[in-house]
Amino acid sequence: MVTFLDELTAALGPDRVITDHDLLISYRRDEADLCDAGMPLAVVRPEETAHVAAALAIAARHGVPVVPQGARTGLAGGANAIEGCLVMSMLAMNRIVDLDTANRVATVQPGVVNAVLARAALAEGLRYPPDPGSWESSTIGGNVATNAGGMCCVKYGVTTEYVLGLEVVLADGRVLRTGRRTPKGVAGYDLTRLFVGSEGTLGVITEITVALRPAAEESLTMVAVFPTTAAAGDAVNRIFAAGLSPSLLELLDRVHLEALEAYRPMGLDTSAAAVLLAAVDTGSRAAADLEALAELARQAGAGEVWQATDATEAAELLQARRLAHPAMEHLALSLYEHGGLIIDDIAVPRTRLAELLDDIVEIAAKHDVPVGVVGHAGDGNLHPNIVVNRADPASVAAGQRVFDEIMERGLALGGTCTGEHGVGLLKRDWLATELGEVGVDVQRAIKSALDPTNLLNPGKVLR
Amino acid sequence: MVTFLDELTAALGPDRVITDHDLLISYRRDEADLCDAGMPLAVVRPEETAHVAAALAIAARHGVPVVPQGARTGLAGGANAIEGCLVMSMLAMNRIVDLDTANRVATVQPGVVNAVLARAALAEGLRYPPDPGSWESSTIGGNVATNAGGMCCVKYGVTTEYVLGLEVVLADGRVLRTGRRTPKGVAGYDLTRLFVGSEGTLGVITEITVALRPAAEESLTMVAVFPTTAAAGDAVNRIFAAGLSPSLLELLDRVHLEALEAYRPMGLDTSAAAVLLAAVDTGSRAAADLEALAELARQAGAGEVWQATDATEAAELLQARRLAHPAMEHLALSLYEHGGLIIDDIAVPRTRLAELLDDIVEIAAKHDVPVGVVGHAGDGNLHPNIVVNRADPASVAAGQRVFDEIMERGLALGGTCTGEHGVGLLKRDWLATELGEVGVDVQRAIKSALDPTNLLNPGKVLR
Repeated sequence: MVTFLDELTAALGPDRVITDHDLLISYRRDEADLCDAGMPLAVVRPEETAHVAAALAIAARHGVPVVPQGARTGLAGGANAIEGCLVMSMLAMNRIVDLDTANRVATVQPGVVNAVLARAALAEGLRYPPDPGSWESSTIGGNVATNAGGMCCVKYGVTTEYVLGLEVVLADGRVLRTGRRTPKGVAGYDLTRLFVGSEGTLGVITEITVALRPAAEESLTMVAVFPTTAAAGDAVNRIFAAGLSPSLLELLDRVHLEALEAYRPMGLDTSAAAVLLAAVDTGSRAAADLEALAELARQAGAGEVWQATDATEAAELLQARRLAHPAMEHLALSLYEHGGLIIDDIAVPRTRLAELLDDIVEIAAKHDVPVGVVGHAGDGNLHPNIVVNRADPASVAAGQRVFDEIMERGLALGGTCTGEHGVGLLKRDWLATELGEVGVDVQRAIKSALDPTNLLNPGKVLR
Repeated sequence: MVTFLDELTAALGPDRVITDHDLLISYRRDEADLCDAGMPLAVVRPEETAHVAAALAIAARHGVPVVPQGARTGLAGGANAIEGCLVMSMLAMNRIVDLDTANRVATVQPGVVNAVLARAALAEGLRYPPDPGSWESSTIGGNVATNAGGMCCVKYGVTTEYVLGLEVVLADGRVLRTGRRTPKGVAGYDLTRLFVGSEGTLGVITEITVALRPAAEESLTMVAVFPTTAAAGDAVNRIFAAGLSPSLLELLDRVHLEALEAYRPMGLDTSAAAVLLAAVDTGSRAAADLEALAELARQAGAGEVWQATDATEAAELLQARRLAHPAMEHLALSLYEHGGLIIDDIAVPRTRLAELLDDIVEIAAKHDVPVGVVGHAGDGNLHPNIVVNRADPASVAAGQRVFDEIMERGLALGGTCTGEHGVGLLKRDWLATELGEVGVDVQRAIKSALDPTNLLNPGKVLR
């Protein structure tokens, strides 16, 4: 009898199929702590669309579930292996197929790293804006599959705003092309944006056409230090009420300031309740806009407000923000030998930010669990990082309760359970709560329409 | 036996159900010439979501197809009645439910006219950018159902970029809520953007939450007159290659210039091959940007280039552009007693504009059919307006051939069959060609998943 693996190896060649146990282990999970992961039967590394199509057709015939993976930098378990699955790692499909500067359009394979595309565009005076925290390692395919956000979103939007068209291999191995290469187009249902953010549950993305923008001019950056979270929230409201459009508006809470100082001392004011980091990039108006931002921060009660004196200092400030995640991991490991983080990703209407911040402090105190909050304040998108001791079930359970109470509170404030990280395994139940019965039914109907036998990343997004 | 109409009238009240034959006639069609329209069995005018849900549940039980309608300004027959259908006119659901200035979000019922929302936002210092030609009469519901474009899209994007969430009544009468009120969110499949542009075939939209932007500063406007279409296309390429982002970049061909002068004389140069109308609205940099645009137009071969001296003159130029459609209708009626237009809406990569323009001239000459081209040059989106004598089947057939040859040519240039008007009845066959077999299969699978008995606007978009 020809087995699944025989057939797969015959079709793709032995070099593209991994079955070594130790190697398989390294493909089990993404960066989400505390999400289940199974052991894959095999990993396949396609180098062209035909390989993906062949592998999916064979998997469908044998009823083997398929889990697509990019760089496994996800934070919701969406790329975690399922017991006995075929992991499809897209990292070998890493060519920039075309960079059409005149039309400001690029076509790439899914394994191209975000920073590689961003730098290739920049070399042509163009910009690919989406900038998730993982941009130096995460792939465009993974960014598209999770509809990744980043710090630029407050002005430039998330990944889906830039995706014009896709090539996708369907569950049965057929190849679908969606969208277009033109700036505008409304030909039929918007399948492109249905696949964006679908976390590998509807098809495997094999090519992506994105819109590029002119490269940004140099930005100006400032920091405002607030005595209370309410004052920081008030500053955010004032900035938007004034009609300003900062290109970046990030928040770090006291826990993060302390964690950063412990991890990489840079003289941050750890007595502050919150710090806002803002940037503007509107050309000749930038200086005036930044001064307006600073004045609004002062009106909202900021103590210290200072501007980066040059590009180097501005880059250092951004780097501090980008270090928030490793700094919190460092904090977790300084508290517990097996310390870890449950990373949340909640978004609320901008005007409810201060309330949510205060609620998180209260919830953390109630359960005596350290929680640091960092986030994209301009988008109302916060990442509460919940510190747990992985070796202590009681600590993990307390962290889970904190996570659930923050989610409950965020939804009650008119928010959503995920602003940019996706649902994966981590948020399936909160997604169901957020969508309601009809919403879940329709999501299931879409999934069944495209993957009737539930072979593509089963159990992710929807239970 | 209780009939469909008895049940409908009992549930919604007689004032909301129209069965008078003469009144029904006025609900038969949108503004697309030459598309079939049937006679509705009745028209219902719901005033709240519960009415829509009740009417759809009753229609589903009786197997009566339902055609949703806004202001019937569509140009593809998407809102045309089907023989024996229930027309659902959304015009009575015309409340702005909420205008949340602090979060820059508005929630409206589908019957709110675009200009009404735009003006309400402006009164609060905000802006709802999508500006289809019909903005003074078309509804937000219709704009969302067709994913309407407009002149601002070159910088500000089409309708879908602004839709955050929807309330939709499904084919079986259940009420679905999609999306969110937060700036960011990736919770589950993007059903919001699946419904945007679905032309009433997947559900009836009953509430829309849109993002608003700060009101634009006053814009500066210029006109450049070109001796050849190639020179105009070259100017468009140069503008984008220079990294400029005009807020408007429109093209009028010689046929349109002549039609406008005949309709409303304003001293346009009717010897020009094409005119580009451009605007910039980037605040203090606007004057420099406009000068750069003018210089690039000159380098591309523009003869005359002039700037509007003030807001009044700029408004007059925009008005001339907005009169292009009535001017062409006037031309058709001056040529034939029963003159009419077949309006095309093709989009190609920006760099292929000049080729497409030349091809259209050639195709029109070959068939001896007058064709005027107007369009959103910055988006590569052209509207060839094909003049036909409705009373002469040979003329209509010739117009149809011109339409088909332009479509064929546009797709060969890497384009799409509809940039912003939608598919409706007019472009079903071209959509199928553009999507290919797998694409059509997937679109059908989505339709079946949401409307298994094919009762919602059947035969539109897909045959």
